[in-house]
Amino acid sequence: MKLASLKHGRDGRLVVVSRDLSHYVAVPEIAATLQQALDDWATSEPRLKAVSDRLNSGAIADAQPFDPAACAAPLPRAYQWVDGSAYLNHVELVRKARGAEMPPSFYTDPLMYQGGSDEMLGARDPIVIRDEAWGTDLEAELAVITDDVAVGTSAAEAGRHIKLLMLVNDVSLRNLIPNELAKGFGFVLSKPASAFSPVAVTPDELEGHWRDDRLHLPLRTWVNDRWLGEPNAGEEMQFSHADLIAHLARTRGLVAGSIVGSGTVSNRDRTRGSCCLAEVRMIETIEQGAAKTPFLKAGDRVRIDMLDLEGRSIFGSIEQTVQLVAG
Amino acid sequence: MKLASLKHGRDGRLVVVSRDLSHYVAVPEIAATLQQALDDWATSEPRLKAVSDRLNSGAIADAQPFDPAACAAPLPRAYQWVDGSAYLNHVELVRKARGAEMPPSFYTDPLMYQGGSDEMLGARDPIVIRDEAWGTDLEAELAVITDDVAVGTSAAEAGRHIKLLMLVNDVSLRNLIPNELAKGFGFVLSKPASAFSPVAVTPDELEGHWRDDRLHLPLRTWVNDRWLGEPNAGEEMQFSHADLIAHLARTRGLVAGSIVGSGTVSNRDRTRGSCCLAEVRMIETIEQGAAKTPFLKAGDRVRIDMLDLEGRSIFGSIEQTVQLVAG
Repeated sequence: MKLASLKHGRDGRLVVVSRDLSHYVAVPEIAATLQQALDDWATSEPRLKAVSDRLNSGAIADAQPFDPAACAAPLPRAYQWVDGSAYLNHVELVRKARGAEMPPSFYTDPLMYQGGSDEMLGARDPIVIRDEAWGTDLEAELAVITDDVAVGTSAAEAGRHIKLLMLVNDVSLRNLIPNELAKGFGFVLSKPASAFSPVAVTPDELEGHWRDDRLHLPLRTWVNDRWLGEPNAGEEMQFSHADLIAHLARTRGLVAGSIVGSGTVSNRDRTRGSCCLAEVRMIETIEQGAAKTPFLKAGDRVRIDMLDLEGRSIFGSIEQTVQLVAG
Repeated sequence: MKLASLKHGRDGRLVVVSRDLSHYVAVPEIAATLQQALDDWATSEPRLKAVSDRLNSGAIADAQPFDPAACAAPLPRAYQWVDGSAYLNHVELVRKARGAEMPPSFYTDPLMYQGGSDEMLGARDPIVIRDEAWGTDLEAELAVITDDVAVGTSAAEAGRHIKLLMLVNDVSLRNLIPNELAKGFGFVLSKPASAFSPVAVTPDELEGHWRDDRLHLPLRTWVNDRWLGEPNAGEEMQFSHADLIAHLARTRGLVAGSIVGSGTVSNRDRTRGSCCLAEVRMIETIEQGAAKTPFLKAGDRVRIDMLDLEGRSIFGSIEQTVQLVAG
């Protein structure tokens, strides 16, 4: 099942989208918004699934053409966005770029941060910045949406709380990060609003690619139509999506609609490329002595997508343009 | 005007509470929840104010007796909770306790962290922990709720976006903090759900005590009926509530219903006592060579309150008991 929130008011309007992303149907009789559906998922999920099945079989005559540009984020404002760093190759490279060591505990104790969730961008919304000198970067990731997760939930139990998956562009202001992290309390200014794929997808849509609470497919990124990378999101994910949820649940429950991110997808095999410019720049520094690829400038375009084995987009693509505003 | 959310479903039921906290009246014709009222505050505020005026004048015959124990947090789940550290005396003492230096930039660049907002506790809800060894502490603070704040909003403009104030108990797991902050990405496990005062109050209720975007009254705390402190919340607040909002707005807008905390209230005058146990323990270490006051144990009771000059509670008190659960 694939769900989207069309732009409408503060929370969007929930719709069911066909598997091939060609059509949608509104479901006001089930839930007005995705959050409302998640608040009582046990009731809404089978009803939404029934609509999805009819839509995919062509049985809904008045289905409307689906336009990703009409989409808000699946959760346009959410009660929680916590992001992990499950791909240790990325963590190693970014830390090298900052001149910081990688502590051995990072292999067993997931690194996560609490992000802002009051404003989530739609897949085609611009990345609005006030200063190019902030060093704007993309970070292509996967994220899951949970239902209610009780405190103390184990990694073995956490998988069943994963209700939907999305792609994310975790926008990062690289040049603000060193000063902010040096203060010791994590990211506040250096992580503005993230953008999400047009649709959120239930794990059963992902067939054999969803295994061990990981999604084993390449995540593809481009900047200005230049290929940036396609690392596999399953292979080197040190902590599964379930591990990340269980880590959070050590001291805190998670409320339905919580979004938990994977961190920037990254593989050690450099022919796979990268999912963020910071990695590209670090590899340039290692291989050529200096970073050559600039961070994003006004007008630059970012594209993030994940395809199935037949080359069809699963989540729809994130396509954003950087917009500089006076400030 | 004073507003509360009575426990009901996930978001509570919005009610208007009388100035003396004795009675309330439901306002379903205006808004079902506080978030809904904040989503269109320009419309809802004058209507709520009209009800409040009638309630305070005794003109509402069927007003119900108000019970703080029936209250959820004013926003039981919120889209944002960001907490500052505006009282530098607290920052200095806590950092001393951790063996960390206070950088000079802390006098000009506010220290803030993004907190979890998916679960906010009511004023009389227990503090549920799974391990006493985590070192559970209270932190008594003030917090404001904003309407929509545009990116780039200045401190001079930010004050008018402060719509409501609350008291907060920012529960902290002290013994988890050093390891978590050493990882570099801020608090995730060491800051479980915070608790909020029974009512949220508009700035105009605070009369002359609300000046320069600061609330100039003592914040009072007790543990097991032992007086812990009553530092003044206005005097040594290095960054005003407006300064904290403007800091966030440098790179990000804030969505209506964002909660911005002050950090633990603290004064240099030690006769005023403290608003958290970490400070008490640090002062004991400095004055007596070792910390003697333990962190909170199962069954311990915390009370936080703020009184007007006539000794009447403004926000209602936060009164929580620590509850240990199997984990």
